[in-house]
Amino acid sequence: MQRTQFGEMECSIARTLDIAGEPWTPLIIRDVTWGPRRFDEIQRDLGISRKVLAERLKWLTAQNIVEQRQYSERPVRHEYWLTGKGAELSDVLLAIIAWGDRWTASDAGPPATFRHQACGQLTHAEVRCSACGELLHATETDAQIGPGHSSMLHTT
Amino acid sequence: MQRTQFGEMECSIARTLDIAGEPWTPLIIRDVTWGPRRFDEIQRDLGISRKVLAERLKWLTAQNIVEQRQYSERPVRHEYWLTGKGAELSDVLLAIIAWGDRWTASDAGPPATFRHQACGQLTHAEVRCSACGELLHATETDAQIGPGHSSMLHTT
Repeated sequence: MQRTQFGEMECSIARTLDIAGEPWTPLIIRDVTWGPRRFDEIQRDLGISRKVLAERLKWLTAQNIVEQRQYSERPVRHEYWLTGKGAELSDVLLAIIAWGDRWTASDAGPPATFRHQACGQLTHAEVRCSACGELLHATETDAQIGPGHSSMLHTT
Repeated sequence: MQRTQFGEMECSIARTLDIAGEPWTPLIIRDVTWGPRRFDEIQRDLGISRKVLAERLKWLTAQNIVEQRQYSERPVRHEYWLTGKGAELSDVLLAIIAWGDRWTASDAGPPATFRHQACGQLTHAEVRCSACGELLHATETDAQIGPGHSSMLHTT
Protein backbone atom coordinates (compact mmCIF):
# COMPACT_ATOMS: atom_id res chain seq x y z
CA MET A 1 0.00 0.00 0.00
CA GLN A 2 2.61 2.45 1.16
CA ARG A 3 4.74 1.55 -1.79
CA THR A 4 2.05 2.49 -4.31
CA GLN A 5 1.33 5.69 -2.44
CA PHE A 6 4.95 6.84 -2.61
CA GLY A 7 5.32 5.79 -6.22
CA GLU A 8 2.41 7.97 -7.25
CA MET A 9 3.70 11.11 -5.57
CA GLU A 10 5.22 13.81 -7.75
CA CYS A 11 8.52 13.76 -5.93
CA SER A 12 11.76 12.04 -6.83
CA ILE A 13 12.46 11.29 -3.17
CA ALA A 14 9.12 9.53 -2.72
CA ARG A 15 9.54 7.65 -5.98
CA THR A 16 13.03 6.51 -4.96
CA LEU A 17 11.71 5.40 -1.57
CA ASP A 18 9.05 3.48 -3.44
CA ILE A 19 11.78 1.49 -5.16
CA ALA A 20 14.39 1.28 -2.42
CA GLY A 21 12.87 2.55 0.82
CA GLU A 22 11.38 -0.60 2.32
CA PRO A 23 13.02 -1.78 5.55
CA TRP A 24 16.25 -3.66 4.83
CA THR A 25 16.35 -2.76 1.15
CA PRO A 26 19.21 -0.23 1.40
CA LEU A 27 21.24 -2.81 3.33
CA ILE A 28 20.52 -5.46 0.72
CA ILE A 29 21.76 -3.06 -1.95
CA ARG A 30 24.83 -2.43 0.22
CA ASP A 31 25.55 -6.15 0.32
CA VAL A 32 25.06 -6.60 -3.40
CA THR A 33 27.40 -3.64 -3.97
CA TRP A 34 30.36 -4.70 -1.83
CA GLY A 35 29.42 -8.32 -1.15
CA PRO A 36 28.24 -10.79 -0.03
CA ARG A 37 26.15 -11.42 -3.16
CA ARG A 38 24.73 -14.88 -2.58
CA PHE A 39 21.29 -15.40 -1.08
CA ASP A 40 22.38 -17.50 1.89
CA GLU A 41 25.30 -15.22 2.66
CA ILE A 42 23.19 -12.05 2.48
CA GLN A 43 20.58 -13.69 4.68
CA ARG A 44 23.19 -14.56 7.31
CA ASP A 45 24.92 -11.20 7.03
CA LEU A 46 21.71 -9.26 7.69
CA GLY A 47 20.05 -11.75 10.01
CA ILE A 48 16.69 -11.36 8.29
CA SER A 49 14.15 -13.99 7.35
CA ARG A 50 14.52 -15.83 4.07
CA LYS A 51 10.99 -14.76 3.20
CA VAL A 52 11.69 -11.04 3.55
CA LEU A 53 14.98 -11.31 1.68
CA ALA A 54 13.38 -13.28 -1.15
CA GLU A 55 10.59 -10.70 -1.44
CA ARG A 56 12.99 -7.78 -1.49
CA LEU A 57 15.29 -9.38 -4.08
CA LYS A 58 12.35 -10.28 -6.27
CA TRP A 59 11.15 -6.68 -6.13
CA LEU A 60 14.62 -5.26 -6.79
CA THR A 61 15.01 -7.60 -9.74
CA ALA A 62 11.63 -6.54 -11.14
CA GLN A 63 12.70 -2.90 -10.72
CA ASN A 64 15.94 -3.60 -12.60
CA ILE A 65 18.13 -2.66 -9.63
CA VAL A 66 19.76 -6.09 -9.29
CA GLU A 67 20.12 -9.05 -11.61
CA GLN A 68 21.00 -12.68 -11.13
CA ARG A 69 24.22 -14.13 -12.49
CA GLN A 70 24.81 -17.86 -12.44
CA TYR A 71 28.05 -18.92 -10.76
CA SER A 72 27.44 -22.68 -10.55
CA GLU A 73 25.83 -25.10 -12.99
CA ARG A 74 25.43 -28.13 -10.71
CA PRO A 75 23.67 -27.21 -8.60
CA VAL A 76 22.38 -24.12 -10.34
CA ARG A 77 23.40 -21.22 -8.14
CA HIS A 78 23.13 -17.50 -8.63
CA GLU A 79 24.67 -14.36 -7.26
CA TYR A 80 23.03 -10.96 -7.26
CA TRP A 81 24.79 -8.07 -8.98
CA LEU A 82 23.83 -4.46 -9.51
CA THR A 83 22.50 -3.36 -12.87
CA GLY A 84 23.62 0.00 -14.23
CA LYS A 85 20.55 1.57 -12.65
CA GLY A 86 21.34 -0.18 -9.39
CA ALA A 87 24.98 0.89 -9.50
CA GLU A 88 23.91 4.53 -9.70
CA LEU A 89 21.62 3.95 -6.74
CA SER A 90 24.53 2.52 -4.78
CA ASP A 91 26.34 5.82 -5.33
CA VAL A 92 23.57 7.37 -3.22
CA LEU A 93 24.57 4.94 -0.46
CA LEU A 94 27.99 6.63 -0.44
CA ALA A 95 26.30 9.93 0.41
CA ILE A 96 24.33 8.23 3.18
CA ILE A 97 27.50 6.61 4.51
CA ALA A 98 29.34 9.94 4.55
CA TRP A 99 26.61 11.48 6.67
CA GLY A 100 26.41 8.45 8.95
CA ASP A 101 30.17 8.39 9.41
CA ARG A 102 30.12 12.04 10.38
CA TRP A 103 27.12 12.02 12.70
CA THR A 104 26.63 8.49 14.03
CA ALA A 105 30.13 6.99 14.32
CA SER A 106 31.82 6.50 17.67
CA ASP A 107 34.91 8.47 18.64
CA ALA A 108 37.02 5.58 17.36
CA GLY A 109 35.94 6.36 13.81
CA PRO A 110 33.71 4.94 11.11
CA PRO A 111 32.84 1.23 11.04
CA ALA A 112 34.07 0.96 7.45
CA THR A 113 36.39 2.88 5.17
CA PHE A 114 36.40 3.14 1.40
CA ARG A 115 39.23 3.43 -1.05
CA HIS A 116 38.62 4.95 -4.47
CA GLN A 117 40.09 2.57 -7.03
CA ALA A 118 40.70 5.34 -9.56
CA CYS A 119 42.90 7.52 -7.33
CA GLY A 120 43.93 4.97 -4.69
CA GLN A 121 43.00 7.30 -1.81
CA LEU A 122 40.70 6.77 1.13
CA THR A 123 37.57 8.62 0.19
CA HIS A 124 34.18 9.76 1.26
CA ALA A 125 31.36 11.11 -0.85
CA GLU A 126 30.90 14.81 -1.35
CA VAL A 127 27.65 16.15 -2.78
CA ARG A 128 28.62 18.75 -5.37
CA CYS A 129 26.83 21.04 -7.80
CA SER A 130 26.69 19.73 -11.36
CA ALA A 131 26.97 23.28 -12.67
CA CYS A 132 29.76 24.92 -10.67
CA GLY A 133 31.37 21.96 -8.92
CA GLU A 134 31.19 23.49 -5.45
CA LEU A 135 29.76 21.65 -2.45
CA LEU A 136 25.98 21.63 -2.84
CA HIS A 137 23.80 22.23 0.20
CA ALA A 138 20.07 21.72 0.01
CA THR A 139 19.48 24.75 2.19
CA GLU A 140 21.27 26.84 -0.43
CA THR A 141 19.06 25.75 -3.30
CA ASP A 142 15.72 27.09 -4.49
CA ALA A 143 13.21 24.42 -5.47
CA GLN A 144 10.74 25.05 -8.28
CA ILE A 145 8.03 23.00 -9.92
CA GLY A 146 9.63 21.07 -12.77
CA PRO A 147 8.54 20.17 -16.31
CA GLY A 148 7.35 16.73 -15.19
CA HIS A 149 4.98 18.07 -12.55
CA SER A 150 1.31 17.59 -13.40
CA SER A 151 0.53 21.27 -12.90
CA MET A 152 3.00 22.06 -15.68
CA LEU A 153 1.79 19.29 -17.96
CA HIS A 154 -1.80 20.48 -17.71
CA THR A 155 -1.01 24.04 -18.68
CA THR A 156 1.08 23.39 -21.77
CA MET B 1 12.07 -2.44 17.46
CA GLN B 2 13.44 -2.17 13.98
CA ARG B 3 14.79 1.23 14.86
CA THR B 4 16.90 -0.15 17.72
CA GLN B 5 18.09 -3.03 15.59
CA PHE B 6 19.41 -0.72 12.84
CA GLY B 7 20.94 1.68 15.33
CA GLU B 8 23.00 -1.09 16.85
CA MET B 9 24.45 -2.32 13.57
CA GLU B 10 28.04 -1.43 12.73
CA CYS B 11 27.12 0.29 9.51
CA SER B 12 26.65 3.97 8.76
CA ILE B 13 23.80 3.19 6.38
CA ALA B 14 21.90 1.26 9.04
CA ARG B 15 22.56 3.94 11.64
CA THR B 16 21.35 6.65 9.27
CA LEU B 17 18.21 4.64 8.51
CA ASP B 18 17.72 4.33 12.25
CA ILE B 19 17.54 8.13 12.45
CA ALA B 20 15.84 8.97 9.18
CA GLY B 21 14.61 5.75 7.58
CA GLU B 22 11.12 5.40 9.01
CA PRO B 23 8.30 5.76 6.50
CA TRP B 24 7.57 9.41 5.72
CA THR B 25 10.63 10.74 7.53
CA PRO B 26 12.64 11.63 4.40
CA LEU B 27 9.61 13.49 3.06
CA ILE B 28 9.20 15.36 6.35
CA ILE B 29 12.85 16.40 6.11
CA ARG B 30 12.20 17.47 2.52
CA ASP B 31 9.35 19.69 3.66
CA VAL B 32 11.37 21.22 6.49
CA THR B 33 14.18 21.89 4.01
CA TRP B 34 12.25 23.65 1.26
CA GLY B 35 8.98 24.31 3.08
CA PRO B 36 6.27 24.04 4.26
CA ARG B 37 7.63 24.17 7.82
CA ARG B 38 4.49 24.45 9.95
CA PHE B 39 2.84 21.38 11.43
CA ASP B 40 -0.57 21.84 9.85
CA GLU B 41 0.93 22.65 6.47
CA ILE B 42 3.28 19.66 6.50
CA GLN B 43 0.39 17.45 7.55
CA ARG B 44 -1.73 18.65 4.66
CA ASP B 45 1.14 18.52 2.20
CA LEU B 46 1.94 14.89 2.97
CA GLY B 47 -1.58 13.74 3.73
CA ILE B 48 -0.47 11.77 6.78
CA SER B 49 -2.09 11.48 10.17
CA ARG B 50 -1.34 14.10 12.79
CA LYS B 51 -0.28 11.30 15.11
CA VAL B 52 2.39 9.95 12.77
CA LEU B 53 3.67 13.42 11.92
CA ALA B 54 3.86 14.38 15.61
CA GLU B 55 5.77 11.19 16.41
CA ARG B 56 8.23 11.70 13.58
CA LEU B 57 8.85 15.36 14.43
CA LYS B 58 9.33 14.51 18.10
CA TRP B 59 11.88 11.87 17.15
CA LEU B 60 13.69 14.15 14.67
CA THR B 61 13.81 16.87 17.32
CA ALA B 62 15.26 14.44 19.87
CA GLN B 63 17.83 13.37 17.29
CA ASN B 64 18.76 17.02 16.70
CA ILE B 65 17.77 16.90 13.03
CA VAL B 66 15.08 19.59 13.31
CA GLU B 67 14.34 22.28 15.87
CA GLN B 68 11.34 24.43 16.65
CA ARG B 69 11.39 28.17 16.08
CA GLN B 70 8.55 30.32 17.35
CA TYR B 71 6.93 32.51 14.70
CA SER B 72 3.90 33.70 16.66
CA GLU B 73 3.48 34.72 20.29
CA ARG B 74 -0.32 34.79 20.51
CA PRO B 75 -1.14 32.07 19.91
CA VAL B 76 2.24 30.43 20.43
CA ARG B 77 3.11 28.84 17.11
CA HIS B 78 6.26 27.14 15.89
CA GLU B 79 7.91 26.25 12.64
CA TYR B 80 10.35 23.42 12.17
CA TRP B 81 13.80 24.20 10.81
CA LEU B 82 16.81 22.03 10.11
CA THR B 83 19.70 22.04 12.55
CA GLY B 84 23.23 21.92 11.16
CA LYS B 85 23.14 18.13 11.45
CA GLY B 86 19.79 18.09 9.70
CA ALA B 87 20.99 20.41 6.96
CA GLU B 88 23.80 18.00 6.13
CA LEU B 89 21.26 15.18 6.02
CA SER B 90 19.16 17.18 3.60
CA ASP B 91 22.18 17.27 1.28
CA VAL B 92 21.78 13.49 1.05
CA LEU B 93 18.25 14.14 -0.20
CA LEU B 94 19.81 15.95 -3.17
CA ALA B 95 21.64 12.75 -4.11
CA ILE B 96 18.39 10.78 -3.80
CA ILE B 97 16.57 13.37 -5.92
CA ALA B 98 19.24 13.20 -8.63
CA TRP B 99 18.84 9.43 -8.89
CA GLY B 100 15.05 9.67 -8.81
CA ASP B 101 15.01 12.36 -11.49
CA ARG B 102 17.17 10.19 -13.70
CA TRP B 103 15.43 6.86 -13.21
CA THR B 104 11.84 7.54 -12.13
CA ALA B 105 10.81 10.76 -13.89
CA SER B 106 8.43 10.78 -16.84
CA ASP B 107 9.57 11.79 -20.31
CA ALA B 108 8.38 15.30 -19.55
CA GLY B 109 11.14 15.74 -17.00
CA PRO B 110 11.58 15.89 -13.25
CA PRO B 111 8.74 17.00 -10.98
CA ALA B 112 10.95 19.66 -9.42
CA THR B 113 14.07 21.58 -10.36
CA PHE B 114 16.69 23.16 -8.13
CA ARG B 115 18.73 26.29 -8.56
CA HIS B 116 22.04 26.66 -6.72
CA GLN B 117 21.98 30.04 -5.01
CA ALA B 118 25.77 30.34 -5.08
CA CYS B 119 26.18 30.02 -8.86
CA GLY B 120 22.64 30.77 -10.01
CA GLN B 121 22.49 27.71 -12.25
CA LEU B 122 19.99 24.88 -12.36
CA THR B 123 21.75 22.04 -10.60
CA HIS B 124 21.63 18.45 -9.61
CA ALA B 125 23.77 16.62 -7.09
CA GLU B 126 26.89 14.79 -8.15
CA VAL B 127 28.56 12.33 -5.78
CA ARG B 128 32.28 13.04 -5.97
CA CYS B 129 35.45 11.70 -4.36
CA SER B 130 36.71 13.80 -1.46
CA ALA B 131 40.29 12.95 -2.43
CA CYS B 132 40.48 13.43 -6.20
CA GLY B 133 37.24 15.24 -6.99
CA GLU B 134 36.17 12.83 -9.72
CA LEU B 135 32.71 11.25 -9.82
CA LEU B 136 32.63 8.55 -7.16
CA HIS B 137 30.95 5.24 -7.93
CA ALA B 138 30.37 2.71 -5.16
CA THR B 139 31.23 -0.12 -7.51
CA GLU B 140 34.66 1.46 -7.99
CA THR B 141 35.49 1.55 -4.29
CA ASP B 142 36.98 -1.07 -2.01
CA ALA B 143 35.37 -1.32 1.42
CA GLN B 144 37.43 -2.21 4.45
CA ILE B 145 36.69 -2.59 8.14
CA GLY B 146 37.19 0.81 9.74
CA PRO B 147 38.66 1.99 13.05
CA GLY B 148 35.22 2.18 14.68
CA HIS B 149 34.35 -1.44 13.95
CA SER B 150 34.21 -3.63 17.05
CA SER B 151 36.63 -6.15 15.59
CA MET B 152 39.22 -3.37 15.38
CA LEU B 153 38.47 -2.01 18.84
CA HIS B 154 38.93 -5.42 20.45
CA THR B 155 42.35 -6.03 18.95
CA THR B 156 43.97 -2.73 19.85
